[in-house]
Amino acid sequence: MFDIEEIISVIKDRQATSAGLQFPEGLKRKGPEIAKEIEKRTGITVIISGDPCYGACDIDEDLLEMVDVMFHFGHSRLLDDDRVVYIEYYHEVDVNNAVEAALPLLGHKVGVVTTVQHIHMMDRIIELLKKAGKEPVIQKGDTRIAYPGQVLGCNFTSAPKDVDTILFIGTGNFHPMGIRLSAKVPVVAADPFTGEARIVDVEKIMRQRYAVIAKAMDAKKWGIIIGMKSGQKRLELAQQLKGLAEDAVLISIREISADRLLSFKVDAYVSTVCPRVAIDDAGRFPVPVLTPVEFEILKGLRKWEDLVFDEIKD
Amino acid sequence: MFDIEEIISVIKDRQATSAGLQFPEGLKRKGPEIAKEIEKRTGITVIISGDPCYGACDIDEDLLEMVDVMFHFGHSRLLDDDRVVYIEYYHEVDVNNAVEAALPLLGHKVGVVTTVQHIHMMDRIIELLKKAGKEPVIQKGDTRIAYPGQVLGCNFTSAPKDVDTILFIGTGNFHPMGIRLSAKVPVVAADPFTGEARIVDVEKIMRQRYAVIAKAMDAKKWGIIIGMKSGQKRLELAQQLKGLAEDAVLISIREISADRLLSFKVDAYVSTVCPRVAIDDAGRFPVPVLTPVEFEILKGLRKWEDLVFDEIKD
Repeated sequence: MFDIEEIISVIKDRQATSAGLQFPEGLKRKGPEIAKEIEKRTGITVIISGDPCYGACDIDEDLLEMVDVMFHFGHSRLLDDDRVVYIEYYHEVDVNNAVEAALPLLGHKVGVVTTVQHIHMMDRIIELLKKAGKEPVIQKGDTRIAYPGQVLGCNFTSAPKDVDTILFIGTGNFHPMGIRLSAKVPVVAADPFTGEARIVDVEKIMRQRYAVIAKAMDAKKWGIIIGMKSGQKRLELAQQLKGLAEDAVLISIREISADRLLSFKVDAYVSTVCPRVAIDDAGRFPVPVLTPVEFEILKGLRKWEDLVFDEIKD
Repeated sequence: MFDIEEIISVIKDRQATSAGLQFPEGLKRKGPEIAKEIEKRTGITVIISGDPCYGACDIDEDLLEMVDVMFHFGHSRLLDDDRVVYIEYYHEVDVNNAVEAALPLLGHKVGVVTTVQHIHMMDRIIELLKKAGKEPVIQKGDTRIAYPGQVLGCNFTSAPKDVDTILFIGTGNFHPMGIRLSAKVPVVAADPFTGEARIVDVEKIMRQRYAVIAKAMDAKKWGIIIGMKSGQKRLELAQQLKGLAEDAVLISIREISADRLLSFKVDAYVSTVCPRVAIDDAGRFPVPVLTPVEFEILKGLRKWEDLVFDEIKD
C-alpha cells in the first residue's frame, strides 16, 4: 500500500546519498524491510527514525538534519519543507457499508469529513450520498489541511457548520467528538471497517473534562508545557497562558509522560502540545493536565458551556 | 549549591532576553523555583527543559534553538558551544572518611579519579594520600574531560595505567567497573557518602555481558542504533558496525526504551548511544542490546577476554 517506486524515483531525481524514514507506530514494523529494499535498489544510506511519530506535525528534525531527504509515511502534508516527502497510506477498505449504515441517521444537508486514510474515497462517499437523495457539502480546511473534507485530531476547520448533520467516515471517537463540539451540529460517525454508524455523544467526555478542571481549581504552581515538535510549538500561546497564573513556569517537553510530569514540583499543567495528549492520556497523568481552552475556563475567561477541544489552526 | 548570582550576571552581560534551564533528573524538582527566581530578578523569559538529561552530552538542542542562553546544571563542560553555560553542582561532603577507608586496600603508587561532583576535592584527596605515604598520580583525560582525574560513564581516559592501584572516589558501580576493565589495574572504590571502600569486582558484570552476547548469537536481523543526542552521535561507527551483519538497518533513537525496541521486527540491537544504556538497562530490554565492543566479539573481530566497556573518546 506504499508506492516504493515513488520513493526510488525521488531518491534518483534528487541524487540523494542518504534518506530518513519515519513511520507512525502501527507501520514501524515494516520499517526494516522497506529500508533494506531502498538500500538494495539505490545503494544509499537509509536511517529509520525509532522515535514515536504521531502525525505530520511530528517530523523527526534531528534525523532530517542528517539526511538528504526524509520519507514520512502514513500522514498527509502539513508543513512545507521540500526535504520531507509524504508517502500516504490508504486503507483499501470500501465505504459503502459505512455510508449505508449512516443514511437513516442523517439530515438532508450533510457535511462530509474523514481522515487521510480514507480521503481517496471522498468522491465515492459523495456519490453514495447523492444517490440516496442527500445534499453533501465538502469544505476546505485551513492551510494545515491537505485535502477538502480532511480532519486532523487538532484541526476541524473543514467541518461545515451550516448543515443538518456532519458525517464522519473513520475510526475512533476523538475526531467525531472534536467535530461535534466545534461545529455544534449533530455528528454521525461511520466506521468503514465495522460498517457501523452511530450518533456521536459528547456528554461523557464533557463530564470527564469538567472533572479535570475542577480538580485543578486549587492548583497554585502551574507548569505550562511547550511542545518541541515542529507542528506543535506554540510559544506565544504558552506565554500568554503563563500570564494567567501567578506561579507558573514554562516547561518544554518532547514526549509527555507521567514520569516527566512527576519530575517537577508543580500542582497542575496546561499542555499546548498536540491537543490529543491531555485528553487521550488523562487517565495516566499523576496531576491534572488541562488544554488551553480548559485553563481559560478555570481562569474565568471562558464560560463552562463553551468547552471545546483545543485546535491548532494556521 | 548553585551559584544563582553567576546565572544572573551571565544573563545581564549577554543581554539575553530568554534562557533555557536543563537539569539532570535528581535536580529537576528545583527547576521551577530557580526559574521563578531568575524571572523575578531579570524579567526575561525562562523555559525549563522537561526532557530527560543524563549528562553533558545530552544538551536539549531544540530548546537551545529557542533561547539566547542555556544553563546546563550538574555536569561539567563537554561540548564547546558558547550558548551553553555549565553550572556545576558540587557535593559538599568531605572525602576524609572515604580515603581513610581506602588506604589499607591501596598499593604505593595510586591513580586518583573521581566524578565532577567531587572534583573540587581533588587537592584534598592528594594531600591525604601523600600524608599517608602514598604516591598519588593524576592524569589528564582527552578533550571530553574538563578536569584532570575526572571520569565520565563513557570516558576513562584519565585513569592512569602505570600505577599499583586506582582509587575511585564517588558513588555507584558503573564508573569503577569501567575503569577496572579499561586500565587493567586493581581499582578501589570509596564512597564519600557512606565512608566505605571496597575492591572493585568485575566478575559478575562480565558474566552478565557474556550471557547477552551469547543470547544474540543466533540473531539474523539487527538494528544498529544511532543516538540523536549531540555528544552521543556516532554515525560513522554505526555504519561500520552495520557492515558486519548482512541483515542490519540503521535506526535513530533519542531515548531508548523497551517499547521503542519492540516497534521493529529485529532480533537484536547494537547501541552506539551512551555506553551506560546497554548495560544499566539490560534487564528491561525485550531483546539483546549489545555495545559496539560486544558486537565485535560476537562477530569474531575481538577476543572474548578483551571485553571492556564501550567508551566515547574525542
